[in-house]
Amino acid sequence: MSTESDSDVKDELARKRLIELASEFYDQFAEGTVPEMEIPTRTKSNIVFDEKKDVWVYGDRTSTRSANSVRGAQKLLKAIYTIEFLAEQLDQDRSSTLRELYYLSESWDEERAQFNDQDESNQLVEDLEIVSEVTREDFHMRPEESGATIMGPLFLREQTRRGERDIHCQEDVGEGGYQIPNNPDTIEFLDHDADFVLCVETGGMRDRLVENGFDEEYNVIVVHLKGQPARATRRITRRLHDELELPVVVFCDGDPWSYRIYASVSYGSIKSAHLSEYLATPAAEYVGIQPVDIVNYDLPTDPLSDSDINALESELDDPRFQSDYWREQIELQLDIGKKAEQQALASRGLDFVTDTYLPERLGEMGVL
Amino acid sequence: MSTESDSDVKDELARKRLIELASEFYDQFAEGTVPEMEIPTRTKSNIVFDEKKDVWVYGDRTSTRSANSVRGAQKLLKAIYTIEFLAEQLDQDRSSTLRELYYLSESWDEERAQFNDQDESNQLVEDLEIVSEVTREDFHMRPEESGATIMGPLFLREQTRRGERDIHCQEDVGEGGYQIPNNPDTIEFLDHDADFVLCVETGGMRDRLVENGFDEEYNVIVVHLKGQPARATRRITRRLHDELELPVVVFCDGDPWSYRIYASVSYGSIKSAHLSEYLATPAAEYVGIQPVDIVNYDLPTDPLSDSDINALESELDDPRFQSDYWREQIELQLDIGKKAEQQALASRGLDFVTDTYLPERLGEMGVL
Repeated sequence: MSTESDSDVKDELARKRLIELASEFYDQFAEGTVPEMEIPTRTKSNIVFDEKKDVWVYGDRTSTRSANSVRGAQKLLKAIYTIEFLAEQLDQDRSSTLRELYYLSESWDEERAQFNDQDESNQLVEDLEIVSEVTREDFHMRPEESGATIMGPLFLREQTRRGERDIHCQEDVGEGGYQIPNNPDTIEFLDHDADFVLCVETGGMRDRLVENGFDEEYNVIVVHLKGQPARATRRITRRLHDELELPVVVFCDGDPWSYRIYASVSYGSIKSAHLSEYLATPAAEYVGIQPVDIVNYDLPTDPLSDSDINALESELDDPRFQSDYWREQIELQLDIGKKAEQQALASRGLDFVTDTYLPERLGEMGVL
Repeated sequence: MSTESDSDVKDELARKRLIELASEFYDQFAEGTVPEMEIPTRTKSNIVFDEKKDVWVYGDRTSTRSANSVRGAQKLLKAIYTIEFLAEQLDQDRSSTLRELYYLSESWDEERAQFNDQDESNQLVEDLEIVSEVTREDFHMRPEESGATIMGPLFLREQTRRGERDIHCQEDVGEGGYQIPNNPDTIEFLDHDADFVLCVETGGMRDRLVENGFDEEYNVIVVHLKGQPARATRRITRRLHDELELPVVVFCDGDPWSYRIYASVSYGSIKSAHLSEYLATPAAEYVGIQPVDIVNYDLPTDPLSDSDINALESELDDPRFQSDYWREQIELQLDIGKKAEQQALASRGLDFVTDTYLPERLGEMGVL
C-alpha cells in the first residue's frame, strides 16, 4: 500500500540523487578538472533494442556537456540552479510545471543561470532525468494536463494532496470517466474485474465504446490516449499490464501518425527512451485500423498526403517498425495510397465497431 | 429534478421540431413552390447585441438555402436524410459524433445525399439547430470530448446511461478533477459551498491553483477551459452562474487569442451566436492577464507577432470588444508590443498567483 512515508522515501531518494550530481561537479572542480556531464545521444540512430527488458533504449553513443566553453559553463550553471530548485521543491513537497520552471528562472539572482527559452529548460530536465535515473515525475515536475481518462471495471485509490480517494472507474464517475492524474504513481489498484486494456486514440471512438457499453460487455478498461499519449497515460497503461497482468491492445486511426502513437505505447518514444522501461508496454498489440482493414472492410478513406508518405517511408527505416507485420502493413498502405480514421467504421453503422470489428479483430489476436 | 421522463420529453420535443421542418419542405412541394430554408448570415458583420438577453445574437441578414439549383436541391436532400437519421437516433435514445454522422452518410442508399466532407455535415447540423431552435446536444450529437474539468466545492448528480452518479467535485474526484460530460444538461446541482466560479485557460495554471488549494481557501469552483472552451464547458459555466447565482471570472493568457476565449465565454462566439443565450455568460468578467498587468507586475513577455497584431486590430473592429475597457487594454498592448502567459506569474514565485495576483485583482473587481 502506498503510504505517506513511501512517498517521503521516494522524494528523499530523488533529492539525494540530485545532490550527488551537484557534488560530482564540485569534486571535478576540486580535482582541478573541467566539470562535465555525459549523456546518451538522443536520436533515432542511437536507440537499440534491450532484449532483457524488451524495450528500446539508448545505445552507446554519448554527448558531453562540458564547462570548457562559456556556453558549456553556462549550461552547467543552469543545471546547478535547477538542481537547487528541484531539491528545495522536493523538500517542501511542492510541485511545478516545466513552463513554471522556465519562468521561475527569471527570479534567480544570477542572470546567466536564467533560461533563454523553454526548449532549453525542458532539455535540461530531461538531461537530469537521464543522469540521475530519477523520473521527472519524481522531481515533482508536472506536465501540462492532458485530459486523458479511464473507464472500466477498475477500483483504485488515488493519493491526493487532500487525502486518499477511492474511485471505481465505472460506478463512481460520470460519462467522462476517471481523469488520469499527472503522476499516476499516486494510484494504487485495489480491485478489478477486467479481462484486458483497450487504449483508444480519439475521443469520438472512446465515447462510442462507452455509449455502446463495450467496457461492461467485454470487461475492458478503456484508456483514452487523446492523440499522442502523455507520459502519465503511458505509465498507467504499463502499470495496468504489469500489476494486473492484463493484455493491452491499442486502437488508433489507420495512418502513419497513429502507428507512432502505438509505437510510443508499445516500444517507447525516441525522445524518452531512457524511460522506456517505465513507460512502454512491449506486450501491447495493435488492433487497428490496419491498412489491410481498409481493404477488407471497404472503409471510407482519404488519399495519403505527401507528408503521410514521407512518414510511412521514415517508419520503414525506424528500428521500432522492423517486424514482418509492420513492413507488410506499411508497404500495403503505400501501395493503396489511402488512410482511414477509426470513426470511418461508422460507415457500416454505429454498432459495427463494437458488434463486429473489435470482436473479430480481438478474436484473431487471441485476446477474446 | 432531472428525471428519466424529463429527458424523454426533451427528446420528443427535439424529434417533433425536426419532423415539422421536414413537413415544411413537404408542404412547399405540395403548394408547388420551390422548397427553401432561410437562415441568418453567420458573420462578424451580422451579430448584434440583444439588450434584453444581454448577449450577442444574429442580426437581420439572412441567407437562403433553396432547391432552385441542383446544388441547392442536393443540400435540402442531405438535410432530409440527416433529419431522418436524427429523428431515429432520438427515438432509440442513441447518440453520435459529428464525425460519425459524416461517415454514416456513406451508408445511405441515395448516393447524392452523402456528404462530400465534414465541413458540409457540420454546417448542416448548425443550420438545423438554428432553424429548429433545438441545440445539437438535444439532437444527441456529441462533440469530440474536450477533457475540460471542474474542481471545487460543488456536489452534483450526473444522469448517465448507467444510472445516476452523485459526485462531489473535491471529495469524490482525484487531482484531475471532475470530467465535464459532453452534454452537461444531464447534470443537476445538488449543493455547493462556493462564492464564485473561476474559469482558467491553461492546464498548468489550473494545476497550480489546485495544488495551492485556492479552490478550498476561497471557495471557488475552478473550471478548466482547456484553451478555446467546448460548448459543454461554456454551457456548464452559464448554468453555474444562472442556477447557483455565482459570479463568474475568466483567467487567461495576456494575448489576443485569449481575449477571444474570454469573449466566447462572456459574449458568445460568432459561429454559435444562435446559442448565445444558452452558452454565453454575459456577466462573466475578465481577471487577466491584462496588458496593464504586464506593465504593473513587470511580467516576462514575448514580443507580439504579426498575427498577434492583426488579431488585436481585428478585435478593435469586433462588436464584442467595443467597451472603453477593452479599447484601452488593446491599444495599450499594441503600444507596448508585448504579450504574457498566465504562467509567467511564476517569475515572482510559485505562490505569487494565489497569494498576491488573484486576491488583488479579485479585490479590485469586487469579487472578493
